[in-house]
Amino acid sequence: MSPTVNRQFKLARRPVGMVKRSDFDFVEAPVRDPEDGEFLVKTLYLSLDPAMRGWMNEGKSYIPPVGLGEVMRAGAAGVIVASKHPSFAVGDHVVGALGVQEYAISNGKGLSKVDPTVAPLPVYLGTLGMPGMTAYFGILEVGELKDGETVVVSGAAGAVGQVVGQIAKIKGCHVVGIAGGADKCRYITEELGFDAAIDYKSEDVKEALKQHCPKGIDVYFDNVGGDILDAALSRLAMHARIVICGAISQYNNTEPVKGPSNYLSLLVNRASMKGMVVFDFAARYGEAVREMAGWMKQGKLKSREDIAEGIENFPETLLKLFKGENTGKLVLKVADA
Amino acid sequence: MSPTVNRQFKLARRPVGMVKRSDFDFVEAPVRDPEDGEFLVKTLYLSLDPAMRGWMNEGKSYIPPVGLGEVMRAGAAGVIVASKHPSFAVGDHVVGALGVQEYAISNGKGLSKVDPTVAPLPVYLGTLGMPGMTAYFGILEVGELKDGETVVVSGAAGAVGQVVGQIAKIKGCHVVGIAGGADKCRYITEELGFDAAIDYKSEDVKEALKQHCPKGIDVYFDNVGGDILDAALSRLAMHARIVICGAISQYNNTEPVKGPSNYLSLLVNRASMKGMVVFDFAARYGEAVREMAGWMKQGKLKSREDIAEGIENFPETLLKLFKGENTGKLVLKVADA
Repeated sequence: MSPTVNRQFKLARRPVGMVKRSDFDFVEAPVRDPEDGEFLVKTLYLSLDPAMRGWMNEGKSYIPPVGLGEVMRAGAAGVIVASKHPSFAVGDHVVGALGVQEYAISNGKGLSKVDPTVAPLPVYLGTLGMPGMTAYFGILEVGELKDGETVVVSGAAGAVGQVVGQIAKIKGCHVVGIAGGADKCRYITEELGFDAAIDYKSEDVKEALKQHCPKGIDVYFDNVGGDILDAALSRLAMHARIVICGAISQYNNTEPVKGPSNYLSLLVNRASMKGMVVFDFAARYGEAVREMAGWMKQGKLKSREDIAEGIENFPETLLKLFKGENTGKLVLKVADA
Repeated sequence: MSPTVNRQFKLARRPVGMVKRSDFDFVEAPVRDPEDGEFLVKTLYLSLDPAMRGWMNEGKSYIPPVGLGEVMRAGAAGVIVASKHPSFAVGDHVVGALGVQEYAISNGKGLSKVDPTVAPLPVYLGTLGMPGMTAYFGILEVGELKDGETVVVSGAAGAVGQVVGQIAKIKGCHVVGIAGGADKCRYITEELGFDAAIDYKSEDVKEALKQHCPKGIDVYFDNVGGDILDAALSRLAMHARIVICGAISQYNNTEPVKGPSNYLSLLVNRASMKGMVVFDFAARYGEAVREMAGWMKQGKLKSREDIAEGIENFPETLLKLFKGENTGKLVLKVADA
């Protein structure tokens, strides 16, 4: 009994400010059979990522924007339900950019097979997926982390931040996470073992950084931008490194991005601010996954996913990211296996 | 006939906004004789540098601020007129932080002897002094310059900028300078051999960068900050490096520093922004001076100084920097040898 209807979210217009349901068309398309060299994937989990907001904008970036009328780009995990491809069999599980839809035809390019008996599928979208890779290469390579340093990460209870902080702990660092709300702060200190948490919703971040980073910040991993980036700049140690991974506080702006007023702290402290895009490390994902899976097995690296349900809820679920409502990797469950 | 009166500018108050004469006290002090291990220097030339504005502010920076009531800090070149020091003799010429005064007592610490027959004294405050060292280590070390790259420098007709651009030309780069006014633009292209000049007072810098840097900017050496930094950020090539040397457009602000709104270009282009302070390279000044003096001798590196006269004109001369009225290294002649 092969599937016949494929529900999809297509980008209908370029959002102005906060993304909303009317920026998408929720449509039904027929499911076609795979041709030679192709296979059909049934989406099980969609990955919801802050970067998706950027993909909806016109203009030059690190990848082309999603075209109007196209299925919204999204990472996903799914199971193969029909195949005419020699290396992908029915029942294989795959992850990759399948899009916000229930079914996708693929020739295998850009997809990876994963084993759901090693880790649950949502983990392959989080800690063992792009967010985990971003955290791993961002803190270790771009941030040039050294043992015993003071590390601060914003968006600390998010998909990337939770991994950044735990890797820094594994490397013997003093780790301070910045997150919104008491629950998230408790999560990163009590469950993940961060040394301290700063609740930006109720604390003066600049003052709290002074308290928790008496020797200054050696590596600041920034997921948020805005005032929190400025607060971190005001507390740099000499030769500090700032990793610019994202700026979620600025993605839905209708006004220009708030540039970091305190950037001259880079001069005073001989510090650097570096941008990163995880795709540059693609050739080394395997090495990272092996090391991280090892840490997970030893209980040193924990992973939490925040799982919503129903593809029809895609726009509202995506909004949770920008409202800071998720703890851990935000995933939308689309179907049972 | 030993000197008896030492005219000095002392810092009277912390400037608010643009520095002005009333921020200083112009006073006369007696000249004392050097004690054992000391010598007396007669100031011949004062170095006027944008960094002086920062030294007048309260607060943590890369060196302590000038205290209220203290002689204003300044680099200077002078001649020894009395000595009880075994290694410094009357008639020796020295450069170092002698301060804005006609005479200084020193034990030799932080001063270097220079030979005015090799280069005129003002050159030791410019191209063979701190600005030259800043340019050399800033573009070659911090900027990690590679042959054939596209280099953009702001404040291009200033003490540091003129050297940055010429070193980049020596290294076979495509060099674009940003300066204010037709005279400065003509100076850097016609006399110094820059490939192009952008007059920020009459041109749209962003558009002009697009025209002159068709492959994007590999290294941007920033002396000015503000809108010009933002324009450069909008035109980065992949893996670009921005050297933050200064931000003269922001030093006299009464409002907060304008942070670079386009800083997320660092992410898109996997670029970096690094701060520098020249003192970190002190151990290698000798090597730089030797190489730069060689280039000067070969006619590859030219040096221009903008020489004002009279210590009594110090505040107004300093202001020329912030008004962009100097071309080349700004120096104040205090006395004849």
